[in-house]
This record gives sequence, structure tokens and C-alpha cells, in this order.
Amino acid sequence: MTAPKKKIAILGSTGSIGTQTLDVVARHPERFWVVALAAGKRIAELVDQARLFAPRFVACADGADVAVLRAALPSDTKIASGQAGLALVAAESGADVVVAATDGAVAFDAVFAAVERGTRIAVANKELIVAAGELFMEAAAKSGAEIVPVDSEHSALFQCLVGEPRERIASLILTASGGPFWERSAEEIRSASPSDALRHPTWQMGAKNTVDSASLMNKGLEVIEASRLFGIGADKIDVLVHRTSLVHGFVVFTDGNVKAQIAPPDMRLPIGYALAYPDRLDDHARTDPFSAIGLDPGASLARLEFQRPDLERFPCLGLAYRALAGGGTLPAALSAANEVAVEAFLKARIRFGEIAEVVEEALDGTLPEPLSLGAVRAADARARELARKAVEARLGALSNP
Amino acid sequence: MTAPKKKIAILGSTGSIGTQTLDVVARHPERFWVVALAAGKRIAELVDQARLFAPRFVACADGADVAVLRAALPSDTKIASGQAGLALVAAESGADVVVAATDGAVAFDAVFAAVERGTRIAVANKELIVAAGELFMEAAAKSGAEIVPVDSEHSALFQCLVGEPRERIASLILTASGGPFWERSAEEIRSASPSDALRHPTWQMGAKNTVDSASLMNKGLEVIEASRLFGIGADKIDVLVHRTSLVHGFVVFTDGNVKAQIAPPDMRLPIGYALAYPDRLDDHARTDPFSAIGLDPGASLARLEFQRPDLERFPCLGLAYRALAGGGTLPAALSAANEVAVEAFLKARIRFGEIAEVVEEALDGTLPEPLSLGAVRAADARARELARKAVEARLGALSNP
Repeated sequence: MTAPKKKIAILGSTGSIGTQTLDVVARHPERFWVVALAAGKRIAELVDQARLFAPRFVACADGADVAVLRAALPSDTKIASGQAGLALVAAESGADVVVAATDGAVAFDAVFAAVERGTRIAVANKELIVAAGELFMEAAAKSGAEIVPVDSEHSALFQCLVGEPRERIASLILTASGGPFWERSAEEIRSASPSDALRHPTWQMGAKNTVDSASLMNKGLEVIEASRLFGIGADKIDVLVHRTSLVHGFVVFTDGNVKAQIAPPDMRLPIGYALAYPDRLDDHARTDPFSAIGLDPGASLARLEFQRPDLERFPCLGLAYRALAGGGTLPAALSAANEVAVEAFLKARIRFGEIAEVVEEALDGTLPEPLSLGAVRAADARARELARKAVEARLGALSNP
Repeated sequence: MTAPKKKIAILGSTGSIGTQTLDVVARHPERFWVVALAAGKRIAELVDQARLFAPRFVACADGADVAVLRAALPSDTKIASGQAGLALVAAESGADVVVAATDGAVAFDAVFAAVERGTRIAVANKELIVAAGELFMEAAAKSGAEIVPVDSEHSALFQCLVGEPRERIASLILTASGGPFWERSAEEIRSASPSDALRHPTWQMGAKNTVDSASLMNKGLEVIEASRLFGIGADKIDVLVHRTSLVHGFVVFTDGNVKAQIAPPDMRLPIGYALAYPDRLDDHARTDPFSAIGLDPGASLARLEFQRPDLERFPCLGLAYRALAGGGTLPAALSAANEVAVEAFLKARIRFGEIAEVVEEALDGTLPEPLSLGAVRAADARARELARKAVEARLGALSNP
């Protein structure tokens, strides 16, 4: 007896999570079947993926690219673009699992449409959970859609919570690698260059995520996500710095027992878990116990080490806690202002230490509005505007010292 | 809406696990209700317990003690002794959970009777799982009785497996404290005295268990138990030495993810878990994240350290793997021979290093018979005889050097 193949739809198929999802599917053709792919601008890659996986539904961002896809793909492939394309892939494809791996807010409506149909979402779209997480989880609770996180830390917490009573969570602990600046002084961090910030010790990621990891804003956003995904308040979510990124999270229960999840830093593991859940894949050979927990098999003594985060050198983490505690549209504003600040930093328009200042000014200028997708969009736009002004003010200061 | 109280029966109520179970019940009178208590010889303590918890059924080992209980307890308390008493408490009391916390084989029939009724067993009776684990788990599978381990390592593995597909276990890792001799040379271990062996670094236990912890036989028996409880072969069970006894076990899954369980070394945690499962108790305040995982809250860097076991200095662990691989009645023989050897060591009749030799000679003289309770009893008796002879031979050698 074989289970039917799970139908997978991917929003953002040419990005890092998208391509790694296709890796996982390619290794398990007996379990998964790609029915729909949506990508943005990388049309040549999308064509290659569609030829290889033969999805029934393909979508791109720009209407002008539809003709290219039409010419390259079989005539029975349904093709669409823009919001209609995202909706086609997420909600009309009949997928069992929608992998939400686009950046930003572009796919919010399409993902909500899939959630309302009760489709499982393997969620890697950070902004969706940070900015609109309460709406998203409410919609999922209403339709019964399963929300399985793809981010390694949230996958860790999710795995530790399988089969457990959610009301018995005492606290959640997320681990942080500490990023490239963990050993540096406050002054070195303040004046760090973009190339300094782009050297991440354990994970390979895009530039934006790597800078967020250097500032610990990444961890701050993950604290907000954990709060939304698991319905736990900011006062019950802790962060521990764990330089080797082997332990990804801990759940502390109200009976004093703690569960932790450990895995090598490879996104295909949480992706595979989100696709296979509640089952697990069977693609890792039995290994030595040191190797299994990510430690050097040749060592005589193996260690897992943890340190407390430092909110003075890494103020972005504190700003995220502040936005979470404030609630409403504040997390959306935090995330949007941070995007503007990181972009300015990567263009060498502000110093690394000014990222937190820019975000803080944007938060100072934001009132927490009750959540709705409209309010989220308005808060996002306003925070970007405030952040741009804060960046400009610093440019002025640089040119007029 | 309140759930009905769970009815708890305890076999071995005056022992270490028994009294700690009563501690847990006393802290949660809203959740648990002691309906039955069975103890051996400590009648005064049993009377005190029965007066405090007012069970309907009370049992003692010796028929001569029934009159004492009769005189001390209310007239509607049902009292019995010997095997009839154990059966009364385990199977006729109507308990929802039977805590099997007697030593040795005395309660085997009573526990099997409870299992056949489909009653949950919180199992702390090591010999039951080591010697008759396959029969026990088969009977439980047939009746649907839940078997929840109380031992901290097996509770750890059980907790990590909640909600998980059992067929996706790649391996199980049990941790070992390493005991008092971990840092000693092979020669120092060979000639260690009983008082040396009784100093355990992290756990407070009885003399027999503490010596077993020093020889790592304790861990060997736990490897056999893990094999029985989770249906996993010897080749997929590893041991890592973890001196601080904070992490109690790891489950490595076939998808490369690993889960670990962490708890302070306090038996009331796994006992409470076994009683409350699938729920958890709610009796630990929210704590600092370092404290939650058992680390010094004042430290700047906290470590969990692991080492490989050393089968040369600690041959008992290898003997246990050998008995498990041999199967049938060999684990029963291992456990029985070890009891005789440890007793001889505690009486200073053999040296510490000779415990393994005595057990090995008993194993050498045992053929693995197919399992039945009768075969287990016969193998137990024969192994004790072989072990006694091996002890005697060494006494002769000592007096005739």
C-alpha cells in the first residue's frame, strides 16, 4: 500500500527556499509531485524548473513574460501572471501543500486564499508572519489549515511541540548563531562595513538576511514569528546565542521538562519536514552518535555551548521585543523600516550601528493600529517613509559633520 | 470543566519511586487519586501512607502483616498479601495507572494481569523490561495498554517520540553520567571499594543501582530496556557519557533531525510525566533560560558536554549489548548474574573489576532460550547459580593466592 503523492505548489520557486524545496521533491519523487510553480523575474530558471517538474500551473510576476512561458511550456500548462498568477498557483492548483517562499507582502492575498481553503502552508515568508501573523493564524484556525514553519528555529519548536499540549508551554527558547559580529566591541560593530556584515559563520543566505543576522534583527523577527505561530507572549520567548547552529530551539514545559531539536544547518531538513509532516522523510543513513548531533566524530569531548544575547551591542533584538509587546501594526512597521535601513547600509549610506537608530525612529513615529491587511500595508508604507527620512537625516549629518 | 481524577495504584509504594510518586500525587490532589498501595516489609510506612492517602486497596508481602494493617486502617479498606495482594492492587483496584515500582520479578504476574486489562503501566521495574520486555510489550500491544517509562532516560526518549512515527527512528542515544569511576584508570576501577562505588555524582539512588551506575551495567540494562520499549535493535542504540545528567536522551530520525530531552535530575519529573501523559503537569514556574536547561544562571557561557563510553574500562556495558544481541533469556541471565555479583562486591567478597567477570561467566554458561515467563524464571535461577559459583571460585583464589 502506497500513500498518494502529495501535491506541492511553490510560491517563489526560483529563490533559495524554492530551489531547495525542488531539491527535496526531486529526491522523493515517490512522495511528492510539483503541481504549481510561481516565480518573479527569473523566467529562464522558471522555464527550466517547469520543464523538469512538469507542473500544471505556472505563474510569473510580469504579464510581459507570459508569452515566453507559453512558447516554452506544453500547451496544457495553465499560465498566469501577477496576483492572478499567485492565486492560480496557491489556491486554484489543488495543492496539498503550498510552500510560501516569496519575500515581502506580494503573496499575502494568495496565501490567505489557500489558507481559507484549508490547504497546508509550509511558511517561509517571514513578513507574512511578522506583519500579519495573527490574521494568518486566525484564518488557519478557522479553516483547519495546518501551518508548518520552514525556518529552522520555528521548525525546531514545531517539532518539539508535536503531540504536546500547547497550553503546557512555559517558555520557548530560540537559538541565534550570534552572526559575524558576536565577538566584536560595540564600537567595531557601529562602524562595520557591508562586506564585514556579509560573512556569516554558519548559514549561507541572501545579503538582507545576512545583515539581519549580524544585527540580530533576524532573531528579533523570529521572536515575533514564534509568538504568532505558537500563540506565546513576548515574556515567554527567550533567545540564547549558540555559535555552532546545531541546536535550533528549546521548548520548556510547565512540568519542568525541556525538549530541544538538533540538526545540521541545512534548510532542506526543515523543508522536508514541512512537506512530509506528520510523517518524516527517510533519507539519512544511520550515523555515529556524535555526527548525528552535529559534533566532530573524531573528538574525544563534544560540546554544545550557549551564551546570553547582548542587547546593548545588538539593540535590534530589543527593538523587536518592543514591537512585539506593542502589538498591532508595530511588527509590520519594524520589518519595513528595517528593510529600508539595511538597504541603505548595503549601499554604504548609513553605518551598521545606524540601522537600529533608523528602525527606532520609525517605531517612535508609528502608533500601533489594530490589525487588518489594509492596516498592515499602511503601516508598512508609513514606516518606510519614516525610515527613509531617518536615513536622509544621517546623510545630511555625514556631509555636514 | 474538570477532567475526572486519575486513579493511581502503586506497586512498591515504600521504595524510592513509590514515595516520590506519592509526593507527585500529594502536590496534585486535583488530578490524581491513590486507590491502591502495595509494599513489601515496611509496614509502618505503608500504614502511614494509607492513612494519608486513604486508598481502597492495600497489600503487603507477608500474610503475617495483614492483621497489623487490618487494625490500623478503616474497615472498608480491602487488604491482602503476597501474590493475591499484588493482583488486588494492580488488576482489581480499577486503577487508571499502575506504577510498577517493585524490584525483581515479584510483581511480574500482577503487572501482566493489569496490562491484559488494558491499564496504563508507569513502569519503573527494570527487571520486568530487561528480562520479559518482549512479552510485556506484546501483551500491551494486544490489549492496548499504554506503557510509559519512569526511568529518566526512557522517559526522555518517550517524550521525544510523542506524536512521531516510530518507523522513522534512525537511532536512539541514551546518556550516562559515567558514574564515580569515569575519570579513573582501569587499575583503580578494578580494585575500587564499595564505599568508592557508592559515591554517585548526580543521582541519589539505592546501593545496587549506584554500583550499577559505577560499572555502567545500569546503562547496559537501559540499552536493553530501550530496545524493548521502543522496538529498536541493539545496532541502533548508542550511549554518550554526559557527566552533568541534564540531557537524558536523544532520538535521531531518518530525516536527519534529532530531538533531545533535558530535565534536572529529579525522578519526580518523569514520574509526573508518566502519570499525566498525554497531558503535562503545571507545577514549574517560568524560569530563566539557562536555569530551564539546568545550567548555572550566573554563568556567561553554558555548556552541555558529551563523551564516548569506554568499553575497556567498563566491560559491563559491552556484556549488556552482547546479551541483547543474543536475545531470548540472555538479558534475564545478565540481570540476575549482575545482582549476585553486585551483592558479592558490596559484601567485599569480590573486587569491583570482578563483577564483569562473574557476569561474563554466567552468560558464557547460558543458552538463549525462547522467551516465556517460565523460561525467564529458569534462566534467572540458573544464572544466579552460575554467578555464585564464579564468586566462590574467586574467594578460593583470594584465600589461596
